[in-house]
Amino acid sequence: MQAKYEKIAESLRGEIIEGKYNKDKKLPTEEILMKYFDVSRNTIRKAVDVLVNSGCVYRVQGSGVFLRDVHDDGFVGSINIAGLTKNFSRDEIKSKVMELSIITPDDNLISKLECTAESKIYYVKRLRYVNGEPIEIEESYYNKDIVPYLNREICESSIFNYMRDDLKLNIGFANRIVSCDKLEKFEAEIINLNEGDPCLKIENVVALSNGKKFDYSIEKYNYLKVKLYNIT
Amino acid sequence: MQAKYEKIAESLRGEIIEGKYNKDKKLPTEEILMKYFDVSRNTIRKAVDVLVNSGCVYRVQGSGVFLRDVHDDGFVGSINIAGLTKNFSRDEIKSKVMELSIITPDDNLISKLECTAESKIYYVKRLRYVNGEPIEIEESYYNKDIVPYLNREICESSIFNYMRDDLKLNIGFANRIVSCDKLEKFEAEIINLNEGDPCLKIENVVALSNGKKFDYSIEKYNYLKVKLYNIT
Repeated sequence: MQAKYEKIAESLRGEIIEGKYNKDKKLPTEEILMKYFDVSRNTIRKAVDVLVNSGCVYRVQGSGVFLRDVHDDGFVGSINIAGLTKNFSRDEIKSKVMELSIITPDDNLISKLECTAESKIYYVKRLRYVNGEPIEIEESYYNKDIVPYLNREICESSIFNYMRDDLKLNIGFANRIVSCDKLEKFEAEIINLNEGDPCLKIENVVALSNGKKFDYSIEKYNYLKVKLYNIT
Repeated sequence: MQAKYEKIAESLRGEIIEGKYNKDKKLPTEEILMKYFDVSRNTIRKAVDVLVNSGCVYRVQGSGVFLRDVHDDGFVGSINIAGLTKNFSRDEIKSKVMELSIITPDDNLISKLECTAESKIYYVKRLRYVNGEPIEIEESYYNKDIVPYLNREICESSIFNYMRDDLKLNIGFANRIVSCDKLEKFEAEIINLNEGDPCLKIENVVALSNGKKFDYSIEKYNYLKVKLYNIT
């Protein structure tokens, strides 16, 4: 179930996409939004936080909340803790599961996931499409002690939604490193690029809100389609 | 002049690098740090914010502030609003000015900097070295209405420090896009890579705290040396 602020975020995002705020390139004040949605200031702030995190608006202290030119050079959008799923509410996202298996962790995984050599780990390799175009190769490792069950059907939609909605787990934070790499031949082929072409690479270690690490993933994005927004 | 919290951040960073907190990979509690540095909770929080933003620690709600494995695979660190300068307090950063000129803006610059066709713009191209190694090519465009004077000497050190310390300007926020690109032949040569190799590309539009945009820059980093840290 969506929280109230999530619904408001979604509805604001819809209005932004439809061009409702294009004239000023700015959202209405908190006061106006509070009246409009009939909710508290705190709910409006949380809704705007969602939009800030997904890169569609940015805050300027003392001036308000401004729209970003999200689609101005053809890239598909930004990425947040939940990966692609949460960001492209107007886009169609599909995942093809290329591999799903249970493995035992090597030293690198043991250190990333803070698990033991005896832990069972779900290995999931997915190819992710936005509006029919393959744009991401994702390899994820889930600690089975925390995510006790996965199947192809779950992996074809959002694993994070399943964790939250079905397993009732609280996803806390992602420890993330963004870099560039060269694509291997077999990787390049499946996202329609050439061997040695760049990819935007994101490594995540994701923890529950109690700090327990449950997921290590490596995402490789088509560099022509995906950019990251960031505000400092 | 450095603020108190900046000095504390620097001293904590030094202790982290020296390995003082390696056992727990965690900073002491706020209470302990308040006593140790004899300052308020607010000052400690601001100091820790600096370290969080520069990617050397991360906060876990309810658990504390944890150290990141910053140097674990040979990359030089993270990047914040002020670019390289602020991040590598233990590293030696040098800039070679490759070009410094005054230009009139094209349509793209007029839109990025929200200036007019009559505005004068400083164009600065720099090659930046960390510990003697060339790792970044940076092209920056400064609106001369806001940054009235630049010379080679200023550009060889930190332009942001000059703006803050000498011009007394308040730097507000950076609107930033991270992506990947291929290096052109002449770019690759100066950072010791090959034509077509990937680079980590960061485009920034930087504004004063009053919202006035003064700088548009394109930074290209050696993809083997630089990664970005990010917490969501």
